[in-house]
Amino acid sequence: MTSDHMPKWIAADWGTSNLRLWAIGDDGAVLDMRTSDKGMGQLAPDAFEAVLVDLAADWLDTADTVVACGMVGSRQGWVEAPYQTAPCGVCPNKMVTAPVLRDALTVHVIPGIRQTDPADVMRGEETQIAGYLAQTDDWDGVICLPGTHTKWVHVSAGEVVSFQTCMTGEMFALLAEQSVLRHSIADSGWDEDTFLEAVSQTMSRPERLAGQLFSLRAAQLVHDTDAQTLRARLSGLLIGAELASTKPYWLGQNVALIGADAVSQPYLAGLAAQGVDVARADATEMTLAGIKAAHALLETK
Amino acid sequence: MTSDHMPKWIAADWGTSNLRLWAIGDDGAVLDMRTSDKGMGQLAPDAFEAVLVDLAADWLDTADTVVACGMVGSRQGWVEAPYQTAPCGVCPNKMVTAPVLRDALTVHVIPGIRQTDPADVMRGEETQIAGYLAQTDDWDGVICLPGTHTKWVHVSAGEVVSFQTCMTGEMFALLAEQSVLRHSIADSGWDEDTFLEAVSQTMSRPERLAGQLFSLRAAQLVHDTDAQTLRARLSGLLIGAELASTKPYWLGQNVALIGADAVSQPYLAGLAAQGVDVARADATEMTLAGIKAAHALLETK
Repeated sequence: MTSDHMPKWIAADWGTSNLRLWAIGDDGAVLDMRTSDKGMGQLAPDAFEAVLVDLAADWLDTADTVVACGMVGSRQGWVEAPYQTAPCGVCPNKMVTAPVLRDALTVHVIPGIRQTDPADVMRGEETQIAGYLAQTDDWDGVICLPGTHTKWVHVSAGEVVSFQTCMTGEMFALLAEQSVLRHSIADSGWDEDTFLEAVSQTMSRPERLAGQLFSLRAAQLVHDTDAQTLRARLSGLLIGAELASTKPYWLGQNVALIGADAVSQPYLAGLAAQGVDVARADATEMTLAGIKAAHALLETK
Repeated sequence: MTSDHMPKWIAADWGTSNLRLWAIGDDGAVLDMRTSDKGMGQLAPDAFEAVLVDLAADWLDTADTVVACGMVGSRQGWVEAPYQTAPCGVCPNKMVTAPVLRDALTVHVIPGIRQTDPADVMRGEETQIAGYLAQTDDWDGVICLPGTHTKWVHVSAGEVVSFQTCMTGEMFALLAEQSVLRHSIADSGWDEDTFLEAVSQTMSRPERLAGQLFSLRAAQLVHDTDAQTLRARLSGLLIGAELASTKPYWLGQNVALIGADAVSQPYLAGLAAQGVDVARADATEMTLAGIKAAHALLETK
């Protein structure tokens, strides 16, 4: 490895379930990438350093700085990086340094963002947003980050103005896999018309939702409705409820969506049906771009 | 045991999780009652008879008829008792006989009720309703049967006209015990004002529900809101959604509630706040009264 190809610093996306590390060279190029399932959820605070060193021992010969985002900075993580409070800039001006045993290693942890009224929190998504803004000059609008806990974030003048979390992804998984509906909902499969009809139903009559969930089970018992159709209908009912709830965020707004294909698709279809045109960006790329923006802040200090 | 005190027949409430048997004497009096955790959920079809015989061997010396309600009559139960289709009378005119090995034993299974549009099903609740109507002459109105899957049933002229199931109880358990909210929701405790405020919020703005669930977790992280308050708020948000969904059932109606105290209390409080006066009845008593009504039908045939 020539000096041009020696890692200069390490970017880390350390979430609840997974860890992703990038070796970054002198010119900001990605030299290598590694992943691990040693997420924050299974690590005691004093276990993080060993996981990092195990996964990136050779990189650490030349890279002595790590910049990390995600649940690694939660109260149960390596070190608590106290939330910034919205409205606030997306670039973190108060990174926290994690305690380490190893000489010549500094680990900077990017703080999450909280909102006081209504209460809300994010940790990790702020970095993706920073990455998106780093690549799109003067962008104002609403960023949707779909996932287990989907975030809707109003961004203006480089600041997070306000945001709202919907736990639709987690609700779908609980209902489809743990509830009585599990007997009637397929593991995969789709029916776009059924999905869009259900989205439209909950958006126009959100007060009916509570009475429509058990109907999925009953439709199978009474009408033998197939399980793929019911999967699409459950998704549509819940996404419709989310779009009804977040209407003040997306209606008439400039909307960008940062997420992987599978989790993004229902949101894109639901928003398109509402006439909302959505710009797209890749979640992993935006995370790396956001960590690079945070690293650049360190350099200028 | 004198002949006056010998069981004449056996009433059985055989649900997914539990079995309850009553020994009934000549005059309809309850001579004894026994329970078991051998519910339908854990039994193959050919295992039911042995469970019955084990639990009631001495009763079977003189009682050769069993009348049973509940999931024992489902497709996965002892024998499938096909649903009656609403609108229909609450007293079952088509009980099904379960296959047995023992001579001189007849087991009659009460059918559930289904509805085709919107699709819905009940199995067990129809017997409680029959019991309630057996005790209240010419009663018309709406019966609410709270539970894991709460039923709202419009009853008129001795018939089930229509009904709606809400899986609010199961949803509450999933969110409070399995979701990310579990870190912030107490196992018990209550705050009536918080509950009623949340009921009112979802009833007046049902479209906001999807955005209010994660806020419970965030309220604890941001404001250190106590877990008992958050438990009451989660219950209120979900009961409010159910009352919004079932408003066509209870608004301006004669409402009766059949259920145990713990599961009934939030419904009673929520309905009282809407100015709805509710008559109450005990679920176990109504089940027995309904099985007795079904047994009386056998006698008249």
